[in-house]
Amino acid sequence: MTIHRYVPTRYHVTLGSHTPALRIADGDTVITTTVDANGYDATGQIITAEPNPLTGPFFVEGAMPGDTLMVHLDSITPNRTWGWSRAALAANVVTPEYARALPPRDLAHWHVDTKEWVARVTTPSLRGLENFVAPLAPMLGCFGVAPWDGQAISSVTSAEHGGNMDYNGFTQGVTVYFPVFVPGALFFLGDGHAAQGDGEIAGTGIEISMDAQFTTRVLKNKKINTPRGENAEFIFAVGNARPLDYALQIATTEMHRWLVSDYGLDAAGASVLLGQCVKYKVGNVYDPAFTMVCKIPKRFLP
Amino acid sequence: MTIHRYVPTRYHVTLGSHTPALRIADGDTVITTTVDANGYDATGQIITAEPNPLTGPFFVEGAMPGDTLMVHLDSITPNRTWGWSRAALAANVVTPEYARALPPRDLAHWHVDTKEWVARVTTPSLRGLENFVAPLAPMLGCFGVAPWDGQAISSVTSAEHGGNMDYNGFTQGVTVYFPVFVPGALFFLGDGHAAQGDGEIAGTGIEISMDAQFTTRVLKNKKINTPRGENAEFIFAVGNARPLDYALQIATTEMHRWLVSDYGLDAAGASVLLGQCVKYKVGNVYDPAFTMVCKIPKRFLP
Amino acid sequence: MTIHRYVPTRYHVTLGSHTPALRIADGDTVITTTVDANGYDATGQIITAEPNPLTGPFFVEGAMPGDTLMVHLDSITPNRTWGWSRAALAANVVTPEYARALPPRDLAHWHVDTKEWVARVTTPSLRGLENFVAPLAPMLGCFGVAPWDGQAISSVTSAEHGGNMDYNGFTQGVTVYFPVFVPGALFFLGDGHAAQGDGEIAGTGIEISMDAQFTTRVLKNKKINTPRGENAEFIFAVGNARPLDYALQIATTEMHRWLVSDYGLDAAGASVLLGQCVKYKVGNVYDPAFTMVCKIPKRFLP
Amino acid sequence: MTIHRYVPTRYHVTLGSHTPALRIADGDTVITTTVDANGYDATGQIITAEPNPLTGPFFVEGAMPGDTLMVHLDSITPNRTWGWSRAALAANVVTPEYARALPPRDLAHWHVDTKEWVARVTTPSLRGLENFVAPLAPMLGCFGVAPWDGQAISSVTSAEHGGNMDYNGFTQGVTVYFPVFVPGALFFLGDGHAAQGDGEIAGTGIEISMDAQFTTRVLKNKKINTPRGENAEFIFAVGNARPLDYALQIATTEMHRWLVSDYGLDAAGASVLLGQCVKYKVGNVYDPAFTMVCKIPKRFLP
Repeated sequence: MTIHRYVPTRYHVTLGSHTPALRIADGDTVITTTVDANGYDATGQIITAEPNPLTGPFFVEGAMPGDTLMVHLDSITPNRTWGWSRAALAANVVTPEYARALPPRDLAHWHVDTKEWVARVTTPSLRGLENFVAPLAPMLGCFGVAPWDGQAISSVTSAEHGGNMDYNGFTQGVTVYFPVFVPGALFFLGDGHAAQGDGEIAGTGIEISMDAQFTTRVLKNKKINTPRGENAEFIFAVGNARPLDYALQIATTEMHRWLVSDYGLDAAGASVLLGQCVKYKVGNVYDPAFTMVCKIPKRFLP
Repeated sequence: MTIHRYVPTRYHVTLGSHTPALRIADGDTVITTTVDANGYDATGQIITAEPNPLTGPFFVEGAMPGDTLMVHLDSITPNRTWGWSRAALAANVVTPEYARALPPRDLAHWHVDTKEWVARVTTPSLRGLENFVAPLAPMLGCFGVAPWDGQAISSVTSAEHGGNMDYNGFTQGVTVYFPVFVPGALFFLGDGHAAQGDGEIAGTGIEISMDAQFTTRVLKNKKINTPRGENAEFIFAVGNARPLDYALQIATTEMHRWLVSDYGLDAAGASVLLGQCVKYKVGNVYDPAFTMVCKIPKRFLP
Repeated sequence: MTIHRYVPTRYHVTLGSHTPALRIADGDTVITTTVDANGYDATGQIITAEPNPLTGPFFVEGAMPGDTLMVHLDSITPNRTWGWSRAALAANVVTPEYARALPPRDLAHWHVDTKEWVARVTTPSLRGLENFVAPLAPMLGCFGVAPWDGQAISSVTSAEHGGNMDYNGFTQGVTVYFPVFVPGALFFLGDGHAAQGDGEIAGTGIEISMDAQFTTRVLKNKKINTPRGENAEFIFAVGNARPLDYALQIATTEMHRWLVSDYGLDAAGASVLLGQCVKYKVGNVYDPAFTMVCKIPKRFLP
Repeated sequence: MTIHRYVPTRYHVTLGSHTPALRIADGDTVITTTVDANGYDATGQIITAEPNPLTGPFFVEGAMPGDTLMVHLDSITPNRTWGWSRAALAANVVTPEYARALPPRDLAHWHVDTKEWVARVTTPSLRGLENFVAPLAPMLGCFGVAPWDGQAISSVTSAEHGGNMDYNGFTQGVTVYFPVFVPGALFFLGDGHAAQGDGEIAGTGIEISMDAQFTTRVLKNKKINTPRGENAEFIFAVGNARPLDYALQIATTEMHRWLVSDYGLDAAGASVLLGQCVKYKVGNVYDPAFTMVCKIPKRFLP
């Protein structure tokens, strides 16, 4: 159980079968950093090209196609004191005619205070936010593994392999499961947000560079179809697709499969449990693929 | 501020400009009952035709087109000890090929215990639910006002006038706001659920008859475009449409309008607040129109 | 087989169980007129309120729930020389960000020449249309029957009962089939267009009042689920719903059912025939419900 | 203007920045072959792995990011006498509950007669198709260029770079335009269909290997956003995305841009022309991205 400290020397704007940045053993921990969505690092320098440059990939020894890669997000912490967001809703999250009334997609700037654990807008032109204080809830917007069939998929979108899911539940303490499509799984991470509402409806969170620590484990011959996760309270399945209805179908299907295969429920029993206990969270409704999360409280599992 | 006790003598399967069941003054309270979605009452008799027979309409004096009707849900309580649900997910909430694997749409039966405030499945054939106990969270699936242009719209669907929204946040203690389209607003209610997961993904909650008490108030010359609501913690706007993306657009647009018109934010400020603080809840993804709820915690409002 | 001449004395903005304008026998023909979508008649007077005021309803004797009403569109002819349309695409038919770039939703005016059978834009401000001549193809935008469960549904939308389908294939010579939901079927018609592209993507066709003649027939105990039709070359089924994907599903399902029930194909055979021979036409992508048409050339039917 | 004869020695299941199979000059013609979607060649041997193995890529000298690659499909001809399709509709093209009633996704076999220019089903179990004869209309299901940002995207889906569009209008004689994202453009082609209905709703056309000839030309500094095309009668723009509504938005937006930039129409004039003259064709509603085609008859262009 080695702890690796990895200082990135290059970044990737696709998740694909790129040369590993580091090879680690099953069970190892990595401490590293990520730049923000535009390539700015902890010192405020732009050191790599946008969009969503990713740290990695990490080759996890023993991971083979058909396995599952477990990634525990040990810690995700902003490593500078400023962030940025957009100051307009994305045009696709309002009704089509109303999109004409939206303000321009200017930047808003934020002071990120990791002592008080809050962020404050510093762009003076935004009326009504003078006393607005957003609690920090640092998360990873984009992380995942190399996809199937030798694809290299842009870090602005997501699919079965993870990617740019922009789900605000991907905070420290969460365990995430990815299907493995290539030897070593090839794990990437980046696009940190100091905070973000559901749906990433302004097209950004509070974009920021991060110090990140994660621990991986390979679950041999455990086949899943789309990312899954769990925290202290919930298990959840993640659907990445457009439209939102389809993302919801993918997430719900995976949760139904999971309940039947691992929890002793039959298809009807899993339907009844889901019908009365399911919770959905909107990950993002902005990226090329939307993200919907299907959750079941652990206290209702047999 | 009269309190009316109204015993229904007929029910409606559409929300439309029907003869009022009762005329009440602005500020009055009504205590009444609702049958379940199939027309069964508190005694277990089927007394009216499905689907979703509604109690009402209540003519609220002074309400005129262009006003808003405020309805406070004072109490919503199951008035019998059994409920029913479906025992299969709806085909449209799983991926299309997976729909073939779903069990038949049989009924599941429930014992509803309003003392312990829980429900238990009593259908023995459902594997894995032997120890499953669902907390009660009684809600109204379908309520709203008469729609615009003389329409009479089925109680199985929803739109700007409310209707079959099947949102599990419509519990007692919530205040709901409806646009008024006809004189007297004509308020209807029914389709109670003892509990329901997000999305009504089995096509039902735990369907049950209810004792219900509500209080109305007319907000003169207050124009809204789609239902809104609030509880102790949140304000929220409701989008009713297919697909889910469009329901989300409607809800987000209404919330953006609300923040700008009532809370002193400009269009950019409201975008930034929403971007970092919005929460979405899936009402239903089963009915002809889906329902998405856009929420802002009150503590973030200026 | 009587031919009735009916001069409208009132119009309806919903399709519902309204008092019949005229009772006709099975097999009768009606010659009547329709006003345009804004209520302007042949003389250019506005004589009734928008939107989409409909002529009717016509009570067809013998039509009962569970039957099918056949309506042959004998002739549809503009009865004046001017029409109007919008001069901007609807915001929902372009990508969300592009909607900001659309021109205002001004009116464009047209001279409609029923001798040369063409229309010409007369609004001088539209650049590039100086020599543009649109062939006439007169159609009914909105027609159908009273819906199920006592509903009255706005003439701006559509569903199983027909309504505002805005399909440019509904021209004279076409036979249309509607499910009957109420005694007498209650047939309505209106919203004529002198011409219209696929999808009604500017939110209008060339809106105009019409002289219309149609002939009805009742198909007893013939149950269909959504409008169907045929012309010399095709049979077709119509799906009315949002989003377009769902409208396509409804139309395809109805066509598959039709092939199996009436043409001697089994489910696999009908799949193969559809797979290689189906054609789709976009009715409208503007109204609250979109319309997709699924067609099979008659020459491929067994 | 060299004519190259290229015999494939390897195939790709992604469109990406792979080593060129052949370098050709601007204006050159290539005569080559494609295998079918499962990797079977003209002789009936399976020679490479599915899905949709592509011939290429062809590096076109002079093509640089920001240019447009023009590809004229000189000829597309089946080079064997048998093909295959699925014998069931895809589950996603029918209403969700109806999907349960679909037959299994068995194969249907076809005799493809390039003398009579027809195909006949040879699978005897399909009832009702005994006399069914499908006219041939050979097309390429999947072709396009390497995508942006170093991506390698599976040949089962499509996007701005083309790919698996499965549009039955991509027949010989058509000219197609692709945005160039990488030096040399890197053109790929494959997935031939002897015939296919709109939408590829059985999930396949009549899958077959092809002899193909195409001619390329580089349009320097001509920037387009998504594939375009033209034939003798139409110009058209292609939207590749889910859902169908979004694909339609992309195609319509590109056509509106095209009319304004190249044909002297202003934004309102282009709206009016589109509103009355546009035609849509459904490419596919089966693949991960759907395809919608927006067409304008050339006779209506100024």
